[in-house]
Amino acid sequence: MSSLQVLLVAGTHGNEINAPWLFEQWLKRPDLIDVFGLRTVKVLGNPIACQKGKRYLDRDLNRSFSQDLLSDSQCKDIEVRRANELLHLYGKDGVNPCQLVLDCHSTTASMGTSLVVYGRRPSDLALASLIQFRLGLPIYLHEDDSSQQGFLVESWPCGLVLEIGPVAQNLLDPLIIKQTILALEVCLEEISKNLSGQETFPDQIVVHRHLGSLDLPRDSEGSPTACLHECLHGNDWRPIKKGTPLFLHSDGFVERFSDDETVVPVFINEAAYAEKRISMSLTRKESWDIKEPWKRSLQSLLSG
Amino acid sequence: MSSLQVLLVAGTHGNEINAPWLFEQWLKRPDLIDVFGLRTVKVLGNPIACQKGKRYLDRDLNRSFSQDLLSDSQCKDIEVRRANELLHLYGKDGVNPCQLVLDCHSTTASMGTSLVVYGRRPSDLALASLIQFRLGLPIYLHEDDSSQQGFLVESWPCGLVLEIGPVAQNLLDPLIIKQTILALEVCLEEISKNLSGQETFPDQIVVHRHLGSLDLPRDSEGSPTACLHECLHGNDWRPIKKGTPLFLHSDGFVERFSDDETVVPVFINEAAYAEKRISMSLTRKESWDIKEPWKRSLQSLLSG
Repeated sequence: MSSLQVLLVAGTHGNEINAPWLFEQWLKRPDLIDVFGLRTVKVLGNPIACQKGKRYLDRDLNRSFSQDLLSDSQCKDIEVRRANELLHLYGKDGVNPCQLVLDCHSTTASMGTSLVVYGRRPSDLALASLIQFRLGLPIYLHEDDSSQQGFLVESWPCGLVLEIGPVAQNLLDPLIIKQTILALEVCLEEISKNLSGQETFPDQIVVHRHLGSLDLPRDSEGSPTACLHECLHGNDWRPIKKGTPLFLHSDGFVERFSDDETVVPVFINEAAYAEKRISMSLTRKESWDIKEPWKRSLQSLLSG
Repeated sequence: MSSLQVLLVAGTHGNEINAPWLFEQWLKRPDLIDVFGLRTVKVLGNPIACQKGKRYLDRDLNRSFSQDLLSDSQCKDIEVRRANELLHLYGKDGVNPCQLVLDCHSTTASMGTSLVVYGRRPSDLALASLIQFRLGLPIYLHEDDSSQQGFLVESWPCGLVLEIGPVAQNLLDPLIIKQTILALEVCLEEISKNLSGQETFPDQIVVHRHLGSLDLPRDSEGSPTACLHECLHGNDWRPIKKGTPLFLHSDGFVERFSDDETVVPVFINEAAYAEKRISMSLTRKESWDIKEPWKRSLQSLLSG
């Protein structure tokens, strides 16, 4: 029998409260979410931040898994210590080892139910393709961004982020909870089917590949001089092309997208990204053939 | 000429950032909002909280204007000191006296553009009726709630709250900004018309009178055991009657509204009210005839 254990994380950001609440209810009522016979470990990513209803205390936990930070024994940041603790407890060589992680987030952006994949690890792409084939959801492929590093799921052999929105921070929302249950069950079902050789891969995976991020226009003191144009508001995943309004300046001037390439914006107006100076990220939609080595990589990981 | 000055407040809650941003742009570009010839004073309610992006530091500023708190010279809370400072500077007997205040808020609830009136002061009701006649917006009449006292506008002879949503905390939203501009301009235009005797009162005002608030169901430790039912989500101002689903418990049980009277929920799932243990407030919709003394009260206040 496979030794596979799936780590399920909620509350990596302490102000994204729907998945933590769901996990708490799940503890009281184990049949709330079908795990399809898998062994799972459920954990709160950042319990202190959850208690305080803050995204984080010292630094973003979901940017604290870089090798530099993890190996810095001088660093006393709560999140870096928690990152090491999570790896010690549930890492692939940890006390209670998990080989695969699903990290449940929510966003103030209108992302719907989506997956985020970091880089191009074969097993991540294989698993994401199975879930996309079932739910038709969009996949944001985050890569090559030197200002955004150290994501939790990258520290496990295979891992995906569930990103569901829109929902305000610190707000229980029945629709977000329902979407989280559905996404988790489908993820677990696909892992379970793969384990027993009953999975059905699509021919292709559609990814939205990260190109970069746009900040709001700012004055010399760093204050925003424009807000997002209303035609973008709530329109994550809808392509924008040359001439599409981006920002509305306070003097009425409309700043427009000027590139020739059509791109797809994601995380439009995510409240937590204001401090990162990201008003949206831009992606390129691409379809890739599913490769045999991806399937083998996932299969080998799951069967341990 | 009238000595009327209208106090315009943004950022009474530091994480409601749209009105403060709008005021900042307005400073740079004085024609951004038409004041219809009125003298206005624009001020940030809680500048330290705005800087930190938090609702408040020591206590909610918009519950700090009770006589008990204002007269407590021992109280060192930042917000109580700020409340006294605002009154000293811009109160009706202040350094730069204002007779009327418009306090601009936003909410995570789907309130649309709405007014909140506190109690039944004749001049408030007269002004609110003029604005409702122009914009058709709903009015939430807050009264008789001993757990909710000390609102800012109550410390001026006449004052209304503009409450606009839904928008997440700490998020610039172009639609919310547009709605704030429109609401402010109509308020100022109606005040200006009233000053010059050109106002047109409706025959009636429709208010949604506060009856009380509902908390989420909780366990003995105070944790919520249910979330709002999805049929309520986003449906502020829509009547609920006996049998309407209210809460979805984690065991699937749907808790329903059991009163015989049809009521209207407001501030459904306002994120900031979680700490106040309010998942929604319930109101009764009533139509009242406009009374001559209300008109005279507003007229006399405006003409000073």
